[in-house]
Amino acid sequence: MRTAVSDVPLDPFTYATRTQGMTASEVRALFAVASRPEVVSLAGGMPFVEALPNREVLRVVGEVIGRRGAVALQYGGGAGQPGLKERLVELMAEEGVAGAPEEMVITSGAQQALDILGKVLIDPGDLVAVEAPSYVGALSAFGAYQPRYLQIPMDEDGLVVEALEEALRGSARPKFLYTCPNFQNPAGVTLSLERRSRLVEACRRASVPIVEDNPYGMLRFEGEGLPALRSLDPENVVYLGTLSKVFCPGIRVGWALGPPGLIQRMILAKEAADLCSSNLNQLVAEEWLSDRDRWRGSLASLNGVYRSRRDTMLAALGHHFSADATWTRPAGGFYLWVTLPETIDATSMLPTAVEHRVAYVPGTAFYPDGSGRNRMRLAFCYPSEERIEEGVRRLGKLLVEVEEAADAGVRASGSGTPPG
Amino acid sequence: MRTAVSDVPLDPFTYATRTQGMTASEVRALFAVASRPEVVSLAGGMPFVEALPNREVLRVVGEVIGRRGAVALQYGGGAGQPGLKERLVELMAEEGVAGAPEEMVITSGAQQALDILGKVLIDPGDLVAVEAPSYVGALSAFGAYQPRYLQIPMDEDGLVVEALEEALRGSARPKFLYTCPNFQNPAGVTLSLERRSRLVEACRRASVPIVEDNPYGMLRFEGEGLPALRSLDPENVVYLGTLSKVFCPGIRVGWALGPPGLIQRMILAKEAADLCSSNLNQLVAEEWLSDRDRWRGSLASLNGVYRSRRDTMLAALGHHFSADATWTRPAGGFYLWVTLPETIDATSMLPTAVEHRVAYVPGTAFYPDGSGRNRMRLAFCYPSEERIEEGVRRLGKLLVEVEEAADAGVRASGSGTPPG
Repeated sequence: MRTAVSDVPLDPFTYATRTQGMTASEVRALFAVASRPEVVSLAGGMPFVEALPNREVLRVVGEVIGRRGAVALQYGGGAGQPGLKERLVELMAEEGVAGAPEEMVITSGAQQALDILGKVLIDPGDLVAVEAPSYVGALSAFGAYQPRYLQIPMDEDGLVVEALEEALRGSARPKFLYTCPNFQNPAGVTLSLERRSRLVEACRRASVPIVEDNPYGMLRFEGEGLPALRSLDPENVVYLGTLSKVFCPGIRVGWALGPPGLIQRMILAKEAADLCSSNLNQLVAEEWLSDRDRWRGSLASLNGVYRSRRDTMLAALGHHFSADATWTRPAGGFYLWVTLPETIDATSMLPTAVEHRVAYVPGTAFYPDGSGRNRMRLAFCYPSEERIEEGVRRLGKLLVEVEEAADAGVRASGSGTPPG
Repeated sequence: MRTAVSDVPLDPFTYATRTQGMTASEVRALFAVASRPEVVSLAGGMPFVEALPNREVLRVVGEVIGRRGAVALQYGGGAGQPGLKERLVELMAEEGVAGAPEEMVITSGAQQALDILGKVLIDPGDLVAVEAPSYVGALSAFGAYQPRYLQIPMDEDGLVVEALEEALRGSARPKFLYTCPNFQNPAGVTLSLERRSRLVEACRRASVPIVEDNPYGMLRFEGEGLPALRSLDPENVVYLGTLSKVFCPGIRVGWALGPPGLIQRMILAKEAADLCSSNLNQLVAEEWLSDRDRWRGSLASLNGVYRSRRDTMLAALGHHFSADATWTRPAGGFYLWVTLPETIDATSMLPTAVEHRVAYVPGTAFYPDGSGRNRMRLAFCYPSEERIEEGVRRLGKLLVEVEEAADAGVRASGSGTPPG
């Protein structure tokens, strides 16, 4: 049998057309780099799970195995554990979102909800409206179903609704709009109250349903919470939640709340995708959420850490970055978004940055059309304040060098001398 | 805003073409029915997790949270936890399958590996070769990618390789063959040694890669283990494993071992689908497998339970079923497969069976073309021996009634009298 090996091509598989768009993302390539201890990573969006009360988590897991072991270790239904869904209904109510367990499906993180939405909604060539920039994981989840994208610009107040309206007045007929209204990943901006009403009206008028992704809504450091799009127009919005930031990502618990026809199809697609989410993890989540003081207390202390880190990053940027860079000032979440002078290419600068022992995610990762070369996402969620200050200092120093080199290049080519 | 609600259709979403094939499976519809305590369910394939040593599981989970909590609660990489992959390499070696961690991707149960394989391999209209009958979950996972199926018949020695060879000599050019060689779900049969060699040769000659699904291989009650297809031709086979039957399904740990080009694409698709599998679950699996005596001992006692239940079911069938029904005699696994007289339609009989307080899965669920109406899958894994005996007794009684009614119908219509 093995004598025939040399006759066989190295790869006997012929891949589906959709794999042509599947390439290792820039974020992914960075994970390896960023894990080296000497590199300050401002790239990855890992929650600071070290702040969780480990003994409490242990007690919760012990409760689940001890009292409900036979359920925890068994298969569950594709829709998810009913008890968990009841706790999540209470959790959503804290942000003013009303929903019932029957309108929900539990997913393995909100990421799986994005994949399943792509699966049940997108035919190849369908148009999907997304913010520019948009969450890179949504672009790769949807990407597997081969959509075209309609990019809607963002500013300090979030998605520019006027630009969407303009596109809808033209020939654009998107299958749905994907948006992250609170402390958006990567831009860190929040959709204003006035724009929320206008957005749901525009989408309803044009029969464009909305996918509202809200991983960071409860990570607000200041100011008043704004109404979820789902609460403004429940019939036209599917709402995605996750415990990855409110509790921890290691249990992969997310969910979708949406119109019944959609949720029924999502449950079927979920069953085909992985039968069910882990019962053990779902019961751990249910038990964790059963004590409101515990989870609110844990979240409040996490938010204290994140707020302080954001402040440190903003101060460091003011101190170490030159006047021709600008950045957003998020009121919550994990990220801020830096716009550099047009002459700087953050994508090609990344390997040099890593040599300078600092990492970030280049802006190009977040645009379907590959624009955003002079932008970068900085995450303040995971590194200590000392590391944030040091990382921003390294980055600022590098930017000065790169800007000077660029200026010298411009001057040099302006004087007819080839750049060195 | 809400005044406009009546203008909106009940479902604002337009679904992708692929959802037309997504319908609630017969297995799924049965889960609700089978959960009523008065119904003896011979339908679902739930492992008997009640036999697991709960205190040991608790200790393992405590170890993971206590010593590796910061990893357990965090995001992981898309390929899976390196330590777990090393334990799985050891586990596969027990069945004679060689592999390295770099050739693997961890998935949320083997079901997710099936979904991801569909995603990276199947373009709409592609031909996929499957056993007839085949695992219903594979058919729904692949189904989302809109293949056509080439059904290869089975007999007591598993897939009829000659029938596959015949099809390959004709115009059939399947993208891959999906097969479950050990204690197949649903047929309970095992591919013979002679056929294994012949199958890998036929597939290699025709450049048809093989997807080998092996959830039940270690649940052997008697006889010698047979070589995995992967061990006979590593370059042309992707091997799927799961801990759902060897340990428990509640942690959703499965994996694929395959050629590097395929595995790299599967990792990208996995990241797009749900970023990563649960670190908590992966570390629990790793810790569970770190003690060979523990997991082998636990598996041996589970196998003792299953063997005894199989014996009870075989004895009960001999006792309560009429001579014109036949069934397979599995040497392991969870299922056996009953062929009834052609006059009996197991699909339409199911509601009556549930009224008689017994449930099974009708054969039609396992054929892409909807054949198999006079067949049924019976699972002996979960109910107690008393319940198995009682369930088979109820089913035998019902079958006698149905056969008599059918015969009466035939006689009645033969004599010109319309059936009652």
